[in-house]
Amino acid sequence: MTMNGTGQPQINTDEVIPRWRQLGLKHRQQQISLIPPEWHLKPVGSEAEAKNAIPVVEQHLPHEELEITSLAQSLPSLQQAIRTKQYTALQITRAFCHRAALLQQLTRCLTEILFDSALNTAERQDAYYASTGQLLGPLHGIPISIKDNQDIKDVDSTLGWVGLIGKPAKSDTTPVEVIRQAGGILYCKTNIPQSMMMSDSYNHIYGQSVNSLNRNLISGGSSGGEAALIRAGGSIVGIGTDIGGSVRIPATLQGLYGLSPSIGRVGNRESTRRDKYVVPPVAGPLTRDIDTLDAFMDAYLGQQPWLSDPGILPIPWRKDIADAYSDPGHKLTIGYITEDGVIRCQPPCVRAVEDTINRLRDAGHKVVEWNHVAQRHHQHAYDLWLKAVLADGGERFQALCDLVDEPLIPGMLVGKAANKLDTDGRMALFDEIWEFQRMYMSLWREAGLDALIMPVTQYTGLRPKMWVEADMYVGYTSLCNLLNWTGLAVPAINVDRELDKVTGEWEGYQGKTFSDQYNHDGYVENFDEFVGMPVGVQIITGRLEEERAVGIARLLERLRKA
Amino acid sequence: MTMNGTGQPQINTDEVIPRWRQLGLKHRQQQISLIPPEWHLKPVGSEAEAKNAIPVVEQHLPHEELEITSLAQSLPSLQQAIRTKQYTALQITRAFCHRAALLQQLTRCLTEILFDSALNTAERQDAYYASTGQLLGPLHGIPISIKDNQDIKDVDSTLGWVGLIGKPAKSDTTPVEVIRQAGGILYCKTNIPQSMMMSDSYNHIYGQSVNSLNRNLISGGSSGGEAALIRAGGSIVGIGTDIGGSVRIPATLQGLYGLSPSIGRVGNRESTRRDKYVVPPVAGPLTRDIDTLDAFMDAYLGQQPWLSDPGILPIPWRKDIADAYSDPGHKLTIGYITEDGVIRCQPPCVRAVEDTINRLRDAGHKVVEWNHVAQRHHQHAYDLWLKAVLADGGERFQALCDLVDEPLIPGMLVGKAANKLDTDGRMALFDEIWEFQRMYMSLWREAGLDALIMPVTQYTGLRPKMWVEADMYVGYTSLCNLLNWTGLAVPAINVDRELDKVTGEWEGYQGKTFSDQYNHDGYVENFDEFVGMPVGVQIITGRLEEERAVGIARLLERLRKA
Repeated sequence: MTMNGTGQPQINTDEVIPRWRQLGLKHRQQQISLIPPEWHLKPVGSEAEAKNAIPVVEQHLPHEELEITSLAQSLPSLQQAIRTKQYTALQITRAFCHRAALLQQLTRCLTEILFDSALNTAERQDAYYASTGQLLGPLHGIPISIKDNQDIKDVDSTLGWVGLIGKPAKSDTTPVEVIRQAGGILYCKTNIPQSMMMSDSYNHIYGQSVNSLNRNLISGGSSGGEAALIRAGGSIVGIGTDIGGSVRIPATLQGLYGLSPSIGRVGNRESTRRDKYVVPPVAGPLTRDIDTLDAFMDAYLGQQPWLSDPGILPIPWRKDIADAYSDPGHKLTIGYITEDGVIRCQPPCVRAVEDTINRLRDAGHKVVEWNHVAQRHHQHAYDLWLKAVLADGGERFQALCDLVDEPLIPGMLVGKAANKLDTDGRMALFDEIWEFQRMYMSLWREAGLDALIMPVTQYTGLRPKMWVEADMYVGYTSLCNLLNWTGLAVPAINVDRELDKVTGEWEGYQGKTFSDQYNHDGYVENFDEFVGMPVGVQIITGRLEEERAVGIARLLERLRKA
Repeated sequence: MTMNGTGQPQINTDEVIPRWRQLGLKHRQQQISLIPPEWHLKPVGSEAEAKNAIPVVEQHLPHEELEITSLAQSLPSLQQAIRTKQYTALQITRAFCHRAALLQQLTRCLTEILFDSALNTAERQDAYYASTGQLLGPLHGIPISIKDNQDIKDVDSTLGWVGLIGKPAKSDTTPVEVIRQAGGILYCKTNIPQSMMMSDSYNHIYGQSVNSLNRNLISGGSSGGEAALIRAGGSIVGIGTDIGGSVRIPATLQGLYGLSPSIGRVGNRESTRRDKYVVPPVAGPLTRDIDTLDAFMDAYLGQQPWLSDPGILPIPWRKDIADAYSDPGHKLTIGYITEDGVIRCQPPCVRAVEDTINRLRDAGHKVVEWNHVAQRHHQHAYDLWLKAVLADGGERFQALCDLVDEPLIPGMLVGKAANKLDTDGRMALFDEIWEFQRMYMSLWREAGLDALIMPVTQYTGLRPKMWVEADMYVGYTSLCNLLNWTGLAVPAINVDRELDKVTGEWEGYQGKTFSDQYNHDGYVENFDEFVGMPVGVQIITGRLEEERAVGIARLLERLRKA
């Protein structure tokens, strides 16, 4: 099977095609058929010829749609445009559907396509506004994209598993419910990896999602399609989920802001299943700018979702905290990590932290090296996290495979029989995690930290399938999930051919493990692909300190512009 | 074995005494030996002759100690007395130790006695205040009592299990840690039932705790000793725990305020063990007046315990919310339940709700009958709760019995093998509870309720061992634990010989079940014991709405005084 520029699969019928693959391809054909023919792209050449998807989509959009979906557009400005009737909900929705459709053909960022119902909703919203003069909520007329694992009533929620095709969701999950209640318009679901336990968004239904900025590289994962879509302007804000970096890794690989909040802030049914997950996933938004993320959280929590979801905490969006931490007069104490002692970070990932810390230091904030803490404790943290996510022995995923004899994609962080924990084992693990949390909190208090700046991940980028080979470490992100703290990925630098070149020091580095060596070699071998790509850092703040992280992100944005 | 007035067990050595009983009695003798001889009571006659413990202790206290421990004393006034040096920490601590020691001999309200270390701490605090002019925290010099299930480092935490004698705790649990950090002085632990799964505080080590106001009746449970101690002035504020009413039932049986908060507010290691408990216990304070409860929560959360306990939510004590709800100008919508359709409440329990609702109605608040909701849904809620608390099949308690072949006390809500749920069963139960929570939240939103007033329990009082026979229903309290909402027991009325007498209507009532009939007969047979006893109601507010409940409690206190 190959893909041409229009995303239409070409099936070689001479091959014997297993049933699971046939079902997957059939579903993908149905998906593509939901893109209107006038939005089909002519073949644009291979990824190598048109690496960056953005100029391609921008060539194909009418002027007004280009303006509406401009990369410079923020949520507050779109909200303003709706309010002042500069654009209708229908104009905005059509523009984003069109741009998303083009991007799907270039990056395979989407799963389920809901353009028809989105356009209908937009029309009804326009009629309501015209007749009443009232908006339906703070997100009235704003198209919002959402990761495939969030259920939308009557829409398939396959999570990329062939065996789940044709089993539409019976109800909306909370983020869907709240976005709709706030007036937001859901128009597409976005691509993920099979099992969601890797950072390469590839599965047997929707295929390989790639990076919008460089189609030779992955979009990341597990919220990879979401990040590719937002990066290239196919969405202004979307919801991902994060169990060990699944919001933050694709965000950083595509120069976005991505929030992994504490449990109970955004709401995710899976977050509350403490019986199923020892460390559960959380839902959080991805955006291109901090104003959009801030405005989205404000709109979302303004719906008081805790009145209908028993898993959301009744804590409104505390703008005063965000404001206090973005105030340049408020001097902060910021810890930083450039290397955790498990895997050495590629040069741009280190430079991203150093550049950020230098700006903070220059602005009069106190910065505190925290590598010694990472090097003493993060391997243990990763061991605990891994034990937690593998604790079901892979049974849930095996059961999904068994539905249609679909093979499990290799290399994912999925348990084997030997990893399975019984009740006592789980209880002991809960206790070990509790003790780790208490210990880390006490180090944090002693150091008097307001936040920690650290790499999002040890790599600058990966080609498709490299994840599978890498014996991949996600300890730079999973720490935050283990602690149940706030992690916010923010853009920092772009890879620079000179500043980040492969020098003797890096060239001569000998990896301590296979995974460490693989990370080293991947940088050396693919350096040319990385030049110009964005690299972010994480702002880590304590439990339920999402506003503090947003405040510091805004402070950093100002320091970069200054 | 019998008890004389000094609480000294008289052992008939002619009997063959099983080992577990010998160990229990030996521990109790050690306990009694920690009461200084000058504080030993002469025999005061049987419970029948000196029913109310309060006049007895008040006769035996020196004037100053009587004043310090006066029933009219509130936490704010004691804090003031410390600050202004009216009393030293040592004076206050000695007075409460003395009063508690006398009460122990009348009601068996204590488990571990820590007078020596408390008096030492008080002396050190006085020296610190004298030399620095600084208080150690908002609870400086205030003796605080605590239920036996909270660990104090190096002190036994038997929970009334003989097999746990002589295994002192390795560290402090959070409430202990926070109270100490705030300057509070721990001087005793308080009595509970074996397993804590009944409301009669009786176990094989510390014996039968009785009601301070009428020693022929039980103190309730499982925080029974705590309530008996506070009621009779042996403590000003103490910590209990509540999994299905264990703070609120003893509170109401002794005319106290008792708060069962949502998970994550006060902190209790057991609250976070979602792998162990499907519905976990929560810790909360008991007091004689609402000002003390309010001031205690403020002092406690003022320590920011969420910075060291991963299970406590970073939500400070929101005095503004409490103030808003106690403002008589703020008109509320209050639902009320007098009967849930499972067990009919004894006449004073109904009158307590009616009296409260009438006062609210007269003050211009909207009141909404909510019996129809209770009668449609509360049996189901109770079934779910019962399934949850029995889900381990009683294995944990059996293992504790097995340590020394101690028998399990009959009649407690403890699972049998048939109740045990496997992983799938637990997961399904979590889902059912989630759905119930969502459904109840939606009824609540539709009705626009600010709070619900309902009985704490269906009975006015019980004699010792009646619980064991009753096939007892705790659905009036367990609802709140199932929902993870706030339940605050507040005093309402006293049983009145005329108003609450056994009339034809009640006399002729035919119970629907054994338990319902037992509750009916118990009232008829024991009416004389109940006359004059306090009866409270519950204020139910939503998840993490503790301040709202406190505000409404203060409003009710004002309406009663008006």
